[in-house]
Amino acid sequence: MKSAVAHDAFATAERFEATGLITLTTDFGLVDPYVGMVHGVLLAHHPRARIVDLCHGIPPQDIERAGYFLAHSRGYFAPGTVHVAIVDPGVGSNRRILVAMDRGQVFLAPDNGLLAGVLGAEARVRELDVTPFALPKLSRTFHGRDVFAPAAAAIASGLAPFEATRGDDIDFERCELPRAHVAGDSGAAEVLFADRYGNLVLSARSADLGPDPEAWTVGVRGSDLRVVGCYADVAPGEGLALVDSFGSLEIAVRDGDAAARYGLRRSDRVNLVRRR
Amino acid sequence: MKSAVAHDAFATAERFEATGLITLTTDFGLVDPYVGMVHGVLLAHHPRARIVDLCHGIPPQDIERAGYFLAHSRGYFAPGTVHVAIVDPGVGSNRRILVAMDRGQVFLAPDNGLLAGVLGAEARVRELDVTPFALPKLSRTFHGRDVFAPAAAAIASGLAPFEATRGDDIDFERCELPRAHVAGDSGAAEVLFADRYGNLVLSARSADLGPDPEAWTVGVRGSDLRVVGCYADVAPGEGLALVDSFGSLEIAVRDGDAAARYGLRRSDRVNLVRRR
Amino acid sequence: MKSAVAHDAFATAERFEATGLITLTTDFGLVDPYVGMVHGVLLAHHPRARIVDLCHGIPPQDIERAGYFLAHSRGYFAPGTVHVAIVDPGVGSNRRILVAMDRGQVFLAPDNGLLAGVLGAEARVRELDVTPFALPKLSRTFHGRDVFAPAAAAIASGLAPFEATRGDDIDFERCELPRAHVAGDSGAAEVLFADRYGNLVLSARSADLGPDPEAWTVGVRGSDLRVVGCYADVAPGEGLALVDSFGSLEIAVRDGDAAARYGLRRSDRVNLVRRR
Repeated sequence: MKSAVAHDAFATAERFEATGLITLTTDFGLVDPYVGMVHGVLLAHHPRARIVDLCHGIPPQDIERAGYFLAHSRGYFAPGTVHVAIVDPGVGSNRRILVAMDRGQVFLAPDNGLLAGVLGAEARVRELDVTPFALPKLSRTFHGRDVFAPAAAAIASGLAPFEATRGDDIDFERCELPRAHVAGDSGAAEVLFADRYGNLVLSARSADLGPDPEAWTVGVRGSDLRVVGCYADVAPGEGLALVDSFGSLEIAVRDGDAAARYGLRRSDRVNLVRRR
Repeated sequence: MKSAVAHDAFATAERFEATGLITLTTDFGLVDPYVGMVHGVLLAHHPRARIVDLCHGIPPQDIERAGYFLAHSRGYFAPGTVHVAIVDPGVGSNRRILVAMDRGQVFLAPDNGLLAGVLGAEARVRELDVTPFALPKLSRTFHGRDVFAPAAAAIASGLAPFEATRGDDIDFERCELPRAHVAGDSGAAEVLFADRYGNLVLSARSADLGPDPEAWTVGVRGSDLRVVGCYADVAPGEGLALVDSFGSLEIAVRDGDAAARYGLRRSDRVNLVRRR
Repeated sequence: MKSAVAHDAFATAERFEATGLITLTTDFGLVDPYVGMVHGVLLAHHPRARIVDLCHGIPPQDIERAGYFLAHSRGYFAPGTVHVAIVDPGVGSNRRILVAMDRGQVFLAPDNGLLAGVLGAEARVRELDVTPFALPKLSRTFHGRDVFAPAAAAIASGLAPFEATRGDDIDFERCELPRAHVAGDSGAAEVLFADRYGNLVLSARSADLGPDPEAWTVGVRGSDLRVVGCYADVAPGEGLALVDSFGSLEIAVRDGDAAARYGLRRSDRVNLVRRR
C-alpha cells in the first residue's frame, strides 16, 4: 500500500553531517563475495569510510526482517551515519531507490517497503538519481555494488544527501507490519522470527503490555509462560517470556532453544493473558 | 599443469603504491577464531591497515572457488590493494607461496592454482621469501596467521612487493578452469556452484553467448529457461537464466532457490540453445 | 569453583596503553544484528576505535569454547588491545562483570568462568562498576550492547582500566578446563570441539606429549592415527593427528572431515600411545 509521508519541511530540516560511517543490512549472506565487493567499492570511492556490517544474514528476499532489524538498531548509531539496506528482489527492474533523511541519519534502500517501519513520521524521502553514481559496468542484478555503494560513499564523504536525488519529496512503498492485538487483559501476537539462540521474537511490543509487562503470561502450545525480567529468572531448561533487547516480547528457554522446543514458526499465533 | 607466465617487464612494471588496504579470501569460515587471529597479526604489524573480508565461506580446500571469487571481485578494489587468498591444503609442506603483481595490485596465495584465473597475462609472479616474515613461533598448519599476515602487512605498509621474494619471475601452478563449449547455436556448460540464494552459477561467460545473451535458452532437467535481463522479468516462482553480477550465466528462480528446485550440483551439465 | 587470583602488585603493575583496538568474542552469531549494534555503540563512543570480530560463532552459552578461543588468540594481538568476551547466560541477573589486566592487555567478560584459562597467574581482576557506562535505556538481556560496549569504548579511548571498577582486586569464577592425562607412554584425552573443517581439537597440549609429539599415536574407534607434522604428510583421505595452530593435539583427515569420519563429539575420549 502507499501512504503519504507526513513531513514538515521546518521540523525535518535537520542538518545531516556525514561522519563517514556507513552501515550495511542485506540478505547477501557471507558465503559469497557479495559483501566484500560492496566494501571494495565503498572504499575505492571513500577510502576513509568506516563500515559496519549490521547484518547480512537476512533470509533471502525477507524485506520485513531487514526493516525490523534496521528499525531497532539505528538508534545505536551516531547522527551522521548512512544506513544502506538492500533486500532487493526487484533489482534491475524499474523499482526506485530511496534516499531518506530522518533524525540526523540517512537511509538508502529499494522502494519496496523496507523502510516502512524504520522512518519516523517526519522523515523526508526522495528518489535517488542513479545516473551520477552507477558504475560504468552497471549490472542488472547487483545494484548493491554498482549503485548503492558509490552513492553511499558519496553521501558519507560529504555530498548533501538530496543532491543525489531528483524531484520532490515523495510517497514511498510501505508494507503492513504485524502488530499484536491487545484489549484489556488479553491479546494475541504472532511470531516474527527466531534469532540465533532459538528465541522467538513476537509482534508484541513492550508498550502493548502497559506499565507492568511482568503481569502477563504468554500461552503457547498448552504452556503458560510468565513474562520475567531476564533469562536467569527461571531454572535452566525452563520456558519463559520477556521483553527483549529489541523492545519486543520474546519467548525463550533458559540455556535452550525455544523454536525447537515449541515448534513455532513465523506467523504462528500465541495468546497473551494478564494475570489477576 | 605448469605453463609459462607471459610477461614483458616493460609492460608490467607498473608502480604498486600501497594504500594500506588488504583483502582476505579464505576457507577459514567464521565459526572459529582463525580470521580474527589473522586480523590481529595484520594490525599488530600495520596498525593503520584497512582489512576487507572478501569471503571466508569458501568450502574447505576449494581452490577453484577461491580463484573464481577473487578473479571477479578484484576489479572492484582500488589500485594499491593487497589481496591475500588462502586455500592451502598443502600448508606446512614444501609448497611455495606466491607474490604476484598485476595491474597495480598485489596478490599473495599458495602456489596451488588458486591464482590461475585471477592474474592477467602480464602479471609478474615470484616466490615469497618466508624467512623475514614468519612469526617466531611458526606453526605448520596456519601460515595464514604465521606467514601470510606479516608479509601482507609489510607490503601494505610500503615494502616493495618483490623485496619480499627470492629468485626471478617464475612459472606458477595453474589449474584447468571449467569453460562452456559453444558452437554456433548450441553449447554446453556446467554448474560451478550455488550461491546463498540457490542461484546456480554456470561455466558460461556472457561473452560466450555473443552480443545478445537474451536470444539463448538454458535446458535443464526438461525445462527450457529463457535468458532474461533481471529476476523481476519473470513471475515469482518461475525459473529463469540471466547474466549475473560475476558476468557468468546463471540459473535462478525468482524469489526462490534454483539449486533446490532443479537438484543441480557442481559439475552437472546444462544445454545452451539459441532460439530462432 | 572459586580460587584466589595470585598476584603481585609490583609484577603486574604493567602499563596498559590503549591503542584503540577492541576485539569481540561472543555467541551472538551473525544472522541477527546483535554484533552490528555493538559496533554501533563502540563507534558512537569512540569513533576512531578499531574493532576485530575475533569470533561470534561460539555455540550459544558455550563459555568454555569462548575461553579457549580467546586464550589461544590473545597473543596475536598487540599490547594495548581491549578484549571483550561475552557469553553471558546470566545477563540481567546479579552476576558481576570483570575487568582484568594481564600482560599489557585488558579483558572484559562476565564473571562466569570464561576468563579462567585466559588470564595468567599475575593478572589483576576487578569488578566493573556498571553505573557510569550503562546506556540510558539499559536492557536486562543485552549487556553486550548496553554495558560492555560503552565500557570497552571508554577504556580503548584512554580511561584507566581500573577507573572503571569498584573495590579491590578480587577472586573470580573459574571453571575446570578439560586436560589430557598422560603418564609415561600412554594417556587419554577428550574432544573439545570440531572446527569448520571437521578437525577435532583435543584436550591434549603439545607439551603433554614431550619433546617429540610425532612419536605418539592417537587411538580412535579402532584406528591408530600417527601424529605427523602437517596435513600433507599423509595421502588425501587418510586420517592423521598433529599439533595444530592452537598448540593442541588434533585429529584430522587430509582434505576431509574427521568429525564426520570418526563420529566423535565433544567429551568423547581417545587414547594416546607413544610408539616404541
